[in-house]
Amino acid sequence: MEKAAVLYTGKAKQMFATDDPDVLWVEYMDQATALNGKKKVQIAGKGALNRQISSLLFEELNAAGLPTHYLQTIDDHTMLVKKCAMIPLEAVIRNFASGSFERKFQVAHLRPLVPAVHEFFYKSDALDDPFINDEQAIALGFATRETLTAIHALSDRVNTYLLERFAQIGIDLVDFKLEFGRLADGTLVLADELSPDNMRLVDQESGNSLDKDVFRQDRGPLTPVYAQVLSRLQADAAASR
Amino acid sequence: MEKAAVLYTGKAKQMFATDDPDVLWVEYMDQATALNGKKKVQIAGKGALNRQISSLLFEELNAAGLPTHYLQTIDDHTMLVKKCAMIPLEAVIRNFASGSFERKFQVAHLRPLVPAVHEFFYKSDALDDPFINDEQAIALGFATRETLTAIHALSDRVNTYLLERFAQIGIDLVDFKLEFGRLADGTLVLADELSPDNMRLVDQESGNSLDKDVFRQDRGPLTPVYAQVLSRLQADAAASR
Repeated sequence: MEKAAVLYTGKAKQMFATDDPDVLWVEYMDQATALNGKKKVQIAGKGALNRQISSLLFEELNAAGLPTHYLQTIDDHTMLVKKCAMIPLEAVIRNFASGSFERKFQVAHLRPLVPAVHEFFYKSDALDDPFINDEQAIALGFATRETLTAIHALSDRVNTYLLERFAQIGIDLVDFKLEFGRLADGTLVLADELSPDNMRLVDQESGNSLDKDVFRQDRGPLTPVYAQVLSRLQADAAASR
Repeated sequence: MEKAAVLYTGKAKQMFATDDPDVLWVEYMDQATALNGKKKVQIAGKGALNRQISSLLFEELNAAGLPTHYLQTIDDHTMLVKKCAMIPLEAVIRNFASGSFERKFQVAHLRPLVPAVHEFFYKSDALDDPFINDEQAIALGFATRETLTAIHALSDRVNTYLLERFAQIGIDLVDFKLEFGRLADGTLVLADELSPDNMRLVDQESGNSLDKDVFRQDRGPLTPVYAQVLSRLQADAAASR
């Protein structure tokens, strides 16, 4: 399999066609952005770490019967994924109050949210990714009621898996972002990436952030933090074999 | 029945206790506000018009088996209602795009929304009544899943009734705001008011606004517009007897 034309260049990943129309080539880049792209730097090694964490978690989810777009790893910063028709919504799942939720409702930092809060944001640079509810998404044609129900259900299953997975290595999964797509046969799958770029992770012992907040808030170098998340996930995966 | 201590003074209504602990005395005031209270004037006759329109619609909904808090009319600007434990959410139902929805999603003015869009806003002056989704409302304890399901269902029934009711008199019900409460026995009822202060109404023939947008946008005197809505509702109610 070889990469062909570039299809999409995002803030942290680049996607290419391949000789198989159902397969995309995804390269994780070393770029870090925050504040909607206003803050942007290169961080050597970040792409490879995010690719490794994403591959590890996607593989585990696939094995647990939770469908993802992930196919296989090519090299340090590259994976192959199944081509999807993407649903233009970002799903945010929150287990503890943080970030925009904490500010919007003026609630205590890391207040537990039970049941987990689901939020959708409409992916639109022009509209600045507005917060949207289910009925708005349906009336505007972004997804059907059936698709949203399937997304809510799959999000809950992914959350249950990841919450437990991170708890086993002493980390609270505070919140995370998911994106979904449909394969040619209509199957709904988890797409995009699963890395500390899209999650808030807090060490249960120290209370330290183990995610992109370290970069957003200038709290020191990012790659040692991401490397720690990867090694804890890997150690636990090896131990449970 | 006589009015006792004042319980609440809002922007357009004042509520009083009565000698019956299950009954409140509601006076509709002549005050008009917009822009979150920044624009505020007295408009003689507005309170009486809103009370008459609300009474007429609440009576019809009660008769149609759609439970409301309305009990009876006392005088031009006063009604008695059942006391409720209010749910701290404003429900907005949209049949056509307008106002904040039109701006947020940059869609065509009065684009039909099918099915009708439901939105909730958390009633909090301190937080500026933020837009909130079902999962946020549940996790923050503002309502249970069961209550939200009941509110969605009752909102749809009220919308179906009012959409048809206004269509019969040549008016499009563009959007409107509802508030809900629970009686002492737990019954969910429609509360607050049902008037052009809380609805967008557009004349099907002329395209003119027949609601508070006339005041918000300084398009002329308000009471002749509200009086027209009332007289069209009354004429139709009389004709169908």
